[in-house]
Order: sequence, then structure tokens, then C-alpha cells
Amino acid sequence: MGIMRSYREELWFNVPHRHAFVNITGRVASAVEKSGIREGLRLVNAMHITSSVFVNDDEGGLHADFERWLEQFAPHEPTNAYDHNRTGEDNADAHLKLQIMGREAVLAITDGSLDLGPWEQGCSAEQLGRTG
Amino acid sequence: MGIMRSYREELWFNVPHRHAFVNITGRVASAVEKSGIREGLRLVNAMHITSSVFVNDDEGGLHADFERWLEQFAPHEPTNAYDHNRTGEDNADAHLKLQIMGREAVLAITDGSLDLGPWEQGCSAEQLGRTG
Amino acid sequence: MGIMRSYREELWFNVPHRHAFVNITGRVASAVEKSGIREGLRLVNAMHITSSVFVNDDEGGLHADFERWLEQFAPHEPTNAYDHNRTGEDNADAHLKLQIMGREAVLAITDGSLDLGPWEQGCSAEQLGRTG
Repeated sequence: MGIMRSYREELWFNVPHRHAFVNITGRVASAVEKSGIREGLRLVNAMHITSSVFVNDDEGGLHADFERWLEQFAPHEPTNAYDHNRTGEDNADAHLKLQIMGREAVLAITDGSLDLGPWEQGCSAEQLGRTG
Repeated sequence: MGIMRSYREELWFNVPHRHAFVNITGRVASAVEKSGIREGLRLVNAMHITSSVFVNDDEGGLHADFERWLEQFAPHEPTNAYDHNRTGEDNADAHLKLQIMGREAVLAITDGSLDLGPWEQGCSAEQLGRTG
Repeated sequence: MGIMRSYREELWFNVPHRHAFVNITGRVASAVEKSGIREGLRLVNAMHITSSVFVNDDEGGLHADFERWLEQFAPHEPTNAYDHNRTGEDNADAHLKLQIMGREAVLAITDGSLDLGPWEQGCSAEQLGRTG
């Protein structure tokens, strides 16, 4: 039991490629530590609609699998297959991929730390890096 | 820091078609304002298992893309392809589409307002409007 | 309005098969009751990256549909089609299925009870039971 406390921090990333996976667990954990919050909920959300935040295994082979898999469901090309791209953008596929990967994760904070399972890592996936 | 406060509001929609996308950002924002909550988390969830709440770009072309894309993954017809429809319902596809679009969004409230990215809009997608 | 309170409980399941759906609404509801929390948010998350937590209809036919549908998107075999499985594991498909089914649900607590729609049930889906 305690007084409610809230804390907000923006994390910025520069990604060198159009598609990239970034493990953000360390930065999220250190934001939790800075906040001084002992028990509560931690919302981690993307603010760009072509990037996502999700919790899964942080393993390079899996990320390659994700990329192939997402491309199969929502291919970037041909860009004119999407009505959204008539706006002059070419990122319709990224909006669809977001629905699979998810915009946000809500994590428990227990005893001052992120309460994650043994293999759980928070990742951000960017679908429109560099050009986005 | 402050005393914890909670606020609940039900939003009701009448949608004219089986499938519809409704931008609910304005109504969610005004519920946040009414609540008087300055810092916290805002849960926005569907309560019907054939409708969803998600955050993405609110653009008509994109919504048309979503509809085609969802239909490809979980076609409504033939309805007898789904075991669930043996119950006498015909909405199995809508239950599957929900898993892609998501039941809920958790939004941050910062300084009394929804803390959304520049293009982020909260939308509700109904897969079983009119008849639902 | 009230003092903030938090409560954490781990639910453990033994599932007899590789794939299984377990309705956890009752156990989540009783954890809410034990917590004494009247208004707030309830995070229910999986801690294994091959299992998921989601809210949908709890109907056997639908679960059979989910299983077929997930297998179509992310087939378990051939296991060597996934880069992740080069690590010696064979669960890449389960990691992908997790992205569709979701790791967590955030539920509202209203007046001391889970605030679910009439057909909403919280379920956990295990993709790697027994061997996981």
C-alpha cells in the first residue's frame, strides 16, 4: 500500500536499417529504478505507428524468423496493393505488421524491479527505420 | 505523487454495417478530462468479443486494407469451416480477427491528457455490427 | 479515490498436451477478491514466452479453430524452416504464435470484481505444454 506515484521517460533510438529489433529491457529496467516505484504497472508503448513493443525471446534467429514471417503476411511490395499508400506513403505494410507485433507491453513492477519471466525480454521492432 | 483515483465510462456505438471502424480518441480524451486524472494509465477495452480496440493511423485507405487483410486470414465464408459455428453462430471469423486487432489498448495519461504519438489514434473495429 | 494497493499472485498450471487452453477467469477473479482491491487495473501476463493470455469466448469449437488457424500461420513442422531452431530448440513456431495470441491482458476491476463483457473469458493458451 502506498501513495500513487508516476514516472514517464522517453526512449529514443536511431536504427540503421528499415527493419530493426532493439532490446529495450535494460533501459526500461533503469527507468523503473529511477522512478523509485516499488509495486505497480509499467506501460511501455511505441509512439510511432510503424514501430512496436513486445515481449518475447531476444534471439537473433528468432528475429530473422519474425522478419520473414511478417513480410509474408504483409509484404512491403507491391506498394500499390494497399489503399493506404495512395496517400503518397509506402508504409501500409508497416501499419499491418504493427497489429501482429503489438504497440505496447504492460509489465509488472514487483519489489522495485521488472517482473519478467526467465526468458522474457522487452523488444522494440521498427518497420520503418532510417526513412521513418 | 497523489492519491489514487479511478474513473470508468462506457462508450456505446451504433454501427450501420457488419464491419466498421470508429475513431474513439475524442471520446476517450473527454473521459480522461472528466476524470480529473493528471497522471496514470487509461485502459480502453472492448467488452464484446467480436469488437476490438487498437491504436493505429486513422486513415480510410488503411481501414480498407485492414478489412481485406483480416478477411484473408480469417474468411467469414464458408462459415461451416469453423467448429465454433456449430454452436449455431456464424461469427467464428470475428473471434479470430479479434486476436489480430486486439481487445484493448493501455494509454498513458500525462499532465491530464492522453499521451499519444503524433499519428496515433485510438480506434474501435467492429466485426459484427448490426447483427451483433 | 483511495490509497494505492497492489497484489501479486502466481498461477501455475500443469497441462497434459503440447497445446492446451485453460480458462483462468475463476482464478483471476478469486485473486482480485483476495486482494481487496475495489477499483483498479489487473494485469494478467504469461511468464513463459510460449504461452499466452487473452480474452475471448471460452468455447471448445473455437479453441479447435484457434489451434488449426495458428498452425496454418506458424506451422511447427518442418522445424528446420526456422532460424531460431538452430539453437537446438524446436519452439520457434510457439514464439510466433505468441504474437497472435498475446502475452497479457489488462482487465478493469470495478466495485471489487473483474469488469468483463458478458461473453468475455480470460484464457491461457500453452503452445509448449508437457515438454516446455
